[in-house]
Amino acid sequence: MNHQQFQLADLARLVQGECVGQADLQLRGLASLEHATSQDLAFVNVDKYLEQAQNSQAGALIVTAELKAQLSSHQNFIVVANPYLAFAILTHVFEKKQTQRGIESTAQIHPSAVIAEDAYIGHYVVIGENCVVGSNTIINSHAQIDDGVEIGKDCFIDAHVTLTGETKVGDRVRIHANTVVGSEGFGFAPYQGKWNRIAQLGSVRIGDDVRIGSNCSIDRGALDDTILENGVIIDNLVQIAHNVHIGENTAIAATCGIAGSTTIGKNCILAGACGVAGHLHITDNVTLTGMSMVTNNITEPGTYSSGMGLLPNQQWKRTVVRLRQLADVPLTQVMKRLDHMQSQIESIESTFKLRK
Amino acid sequence: MNHQQFQLADLARLVQGECVGQADLQLRGLASLEHATSQDLAFVNVDKYLEQAQNSQAGALIVTAELKAQLSSHQNFIVVANPYLAFAILTHVFEKKQTQRGIESTAQIHPSAVIAEDAYIGHYVVIGENCVVGSNTIINSHAQIDDGVEIGKDCFIDAHVTLTGETKVGDRVRIHANTVVGSEGFGFAPYQGKWNRIAQLGSVRIGDDVRIGSNCSIDRGALDDTILENGVIIDNLVQIAHNVHIGENTAIAATCGIAGSTTIGKNCILAGACGVAGHLHITDNVTLTGMSMVTNNITEPGTYSSGMGLLPNQQWKRTVVRLRQLADVPLTQVMKRLDHMQSQIESIESTFKLRK
Amino acid sequence: MNHQQFQLADLARLVQGECVGQADLQLRGLASLEHATSQDLAFVNVDKYLEQAQNSQAGALIVTAELKAQLSSHQNFIVVANPYLAFAILTHVFEKKQTQRGIESTAQIHPSAVIAEDAYIGHYVVIGENCVVGSNTIINSHAQIDDGVEIGKDCFIDAHVTLTGETKVGDRVRIHANTVVGSEGFGFAPYQGKWNRIAQLGSVRIGDDVRIGSNCSIDRGALDDTILENGVIIDNLVQIAHNVHIGENTAIAATCGIAGSTTIGKNCILAGACGVAGHLHITDNVTLTGMSMVTNNITEPGTYSSGMGLLPNQQWKRTVVRLRQLADVPLTQVMKRLDHMQSQIESIESTFKLRK
Repeated sequence: MNHQQFQLADLARLVQGECVGQADLQLRGLASLEHATSQDLAFVNVDKYLEQAQNSQAGALIVTAELKAQLSSHQNFIVVANPYLAFAILTHVFEKKQTQRGIESTAQIHPSAVIAEDAYIGHYVVIGENCVVGSNTIINSHAQIDDGVEIGKDCFIDAHVTLTGETKVGDRVRIHANTVVGSEGFGFAPYQGKWNRIAQLGSVRIGDDVRIGSNCSIDRGALDDTILENGVIIDNLVQIAHNVHIGENTAIAATCGIAGSTTIGKNCILAGACGVAGHLHITDNVTLTGMSMVTNNITEPGTYSSGMGLLPNQQWKRTVVRLRQLADVPLTQVMKRLDHMQSQIESIESTFKLRK
Repeated sequence: MNHQQFQLADLARLVQGECVGQADLQLRGLASLEHATSQDLAFVNVDKYLEQAQNSQAGALIVTAELKAQLSSHQNFIVVANPYLAFAILTHVFEKKQTQRGIESTAQIHPSAVIAEDAYIGHYVVIGENCVVGSNTIINSHAQIDDGVEIGKDCFIDAHVTLTGETKVGDRVRIHANTVVGSEGFGFAPYQGKWNRIAQLGSVRIGDDVRIGSNCSIDRGALDDTILENGVIIDNLVQIAHNVHIGENTAIAATCGIAGSTTIGKNCILAGACGVAGHLHITDNVTLTGMSMVTNNITEPGTYSSGMGLLPNQQWKRTVVRLRQLADVPLTQVMKRLDHMQSQIESIESTFKLRK
Repeated sequence: MNHQQFQLADLARLVQGECVGQADLQLRGLASLEHATSQDLAFVNVDKYLEQAQNSQAGALIVTAELKAQLSSHQNFIVVANPYLAFAILTHVFEKKQTQRGIESTAQIHPSAVIAEDAYIGHYVVIGENCVVGSNTIINSHAQIDDGVEIGKDCFIDAHVTLTGETKVGDRVRIHANTVVGSEGFGFAPYQGKWNRIAQLGSVRIGDDVRIGSNCSIDRGALDDTILENGVIIDNLVQIAHNVHIGENTAIAATCGIAGSTTIGKNCILAGACGVAGHLHITDNVTLTGMSMVTNNITEPGTYSSGMGLLPNQQWKRTVVRLRQLADVPLTQVMKRLDHMQSQIESIESTFKLRK
């Protein structure tokens, strides 16, 4: 965090909120309810945190009108419809910005590359032939920008990122440290027991407002391009194989893997560690819970899941034994047979009574 | 892609194919059936793409004789027995090659290192004591080659790769960006509630024609070496623990993890996200489907799988409830008891009839 | 391995063991029983390796008194209570140490940074404003140490590591190549179908004696810090999300992912590829077997597991069909109904006999 101070009224104005209490209250930071001091601003967005809010030392709280009514403990508030969104907006006020501009003397830039005047190119960055870096874009130390890569404006490319395969990056894109975009897809033609490498001739196209975490691998396409549409957000350690197409505003959590040529629609959410097989089509508005295993197309929007969840080890061992028997137990038949035998027994009993 | 042009006849010759149609047709690239233009070459290898091929704008098609007979739409062909293999071979013709040779002035190379005259050592590469880099090998910017590492000829080591632990690399090996080979294995001796680090004294041996993707971690052995045999191909974000041994021409897809001291045979295929426990032996010619969980040796060649697949979230929740009951339901008994009771009922019924 | 020689008696002394046999025996290395030569020392810690030990060419063996009594093949021993621990200690004797100290001329260090005299700062390392690097700490080539990062003494930071987000690192911490610590957490406020980035204002705090493998991603907190307590050990390719808290001496194997704000207790062991959902609490002394899926709090110490294990593909396909039926089969009822019908049948039979 930087260490400027901000007045409550000014912060309220930034989120179009109502300032309640001491308008000129000086605030130095945003903090959690638990750790906030009298110089911090905190937020409450749901009732379950009310008690914590009551006990919080925060100098001021971002709340809804409803929540404010239930908080006797504090005098200073920013009242908004959506406290979480207001909080998100204010994090940018307190964020320490990278202000350097220009090109560090140690950067290696090919004469044919076009770098905006107000971009920042860090130490030891290598930029190849015919690259383009847009206005106000920051490229941190050691980044490798190979020939033919183009990066839009207001982007953030962190240290040790490798952009290759003539990747094209839109505006306001953030790519975190040690991520690789445009590396060769995993394409091999098997012949006589050996793997014959297929040189990958496609590229990667990244839209605007895309976010990619650290240590991700996003491969270039075999012939056509791998595509991330506008607004896609990706967490850390995610694998995006060649020719995958991710639709607008889809979110992919950490350690997911998407295999080659799969298309994922718009506004999807993949929780952590999901695996999606290759050459599939997932429609828009699909949510996958954590560790989901996708081996078929998904044509209906909705939430899908996989996995048996967690069991105590001893119960798990017995469960696995049963699972190995399951293939040979016609479960649906079992119920039918039970019903059938039940009726047989009843008929016997009734006949029986008759003849008494 | 580079922008040379090639004549159809010449390309046919390269794949020992029959050139049908305009022998001097100029082609600028390889493309998918969907996006090919009249200056592009495309390929068809199975019937299901015939309609797409008919409608393709491709200037020429790589096909089998059988497929050609069914294609009225095109006049120019390269006819081969295996179009996919021919395509794989031709990708190398259209691939843009890295032609630089020599050592960039910014590279730091220990005087004892032996670098072939015709190798390329990129900007900011660091090469340590007693390293060897073979003929025609390319090492891109920022790669870190620690003391005692040896790399053969015709290799490609991409940006930000770390080779340490005195790793030995064969010929024609490709290691993609940000991968780490030879880092310390995860070995600790527990004693009195603490973890005592075991310094790893083994190394990594990589055969010829091995391919390793981006962001992989391949650890050095504890005492003996971690070994990848000739022709092994590995995708991105793969973990190979200390003392693992991977047999010839085995393929490992993205985000797989192989735990310590496990041996995997020749010609195996691990689809994405498989997990293999430690100290196991997997025989030759084993295929694991995606997300397979291997906790025992595999002694028979064949295909193996794990995972319940994907369910709609509501059904999944009910399924998990049943799975938690499964441990206490003797499934095989159920069927036996049903059969037994059925026969009891029938005997009653028959007796019954008798006494009418 | 370095190539000094050591006398058996001296090595025995280092592990407070009893030297049996030729006290001045010169040993050049530690090796596995299988590959040891007459100049190597090997260890045996369990009976099952006795035969291998008998046949080993090792010049000397680290053993317990019990094991020694069973080994007629060798004359030279180091006798200890815990051979594996003794081996762990001796690996450090044979490990090749990095002896360079000082700052390479190519490193870029901000004038406000405080670097200990006896630290090593490798080639092309970039160290930002107000950073601190402690005594005897080694930072290898290309590491990126961003503004405000503090590193204690006797640490090892390998090549291409990125330390950002004002991360604070304790003493004797080892962070392996290409790992990223302090990168931005995956925090976004959804609003009107878009993801609004939440700038991450927290940091990462790493205790003493922590070990982090290669290609890991450990994110900074949103407001409070992400915390790894003393003695935590982490393997490769592990994801630790923002605001996770890992307790003392907990071990996390490769490719695990821990989602945001989850707390894991002390002395836990997570085997490879486990996934832990966000906002959970896992108590102390919990062991998770490989590929465990954790979606609820764990309040009892013990061992827990997930996953159906591996099946031959054909059986697996049939099993998955049954699993899809399972939701609608009331397993516990089935057993009750079977018992009930059995008793009905028996009563019929008995009545029946009566009336003969």
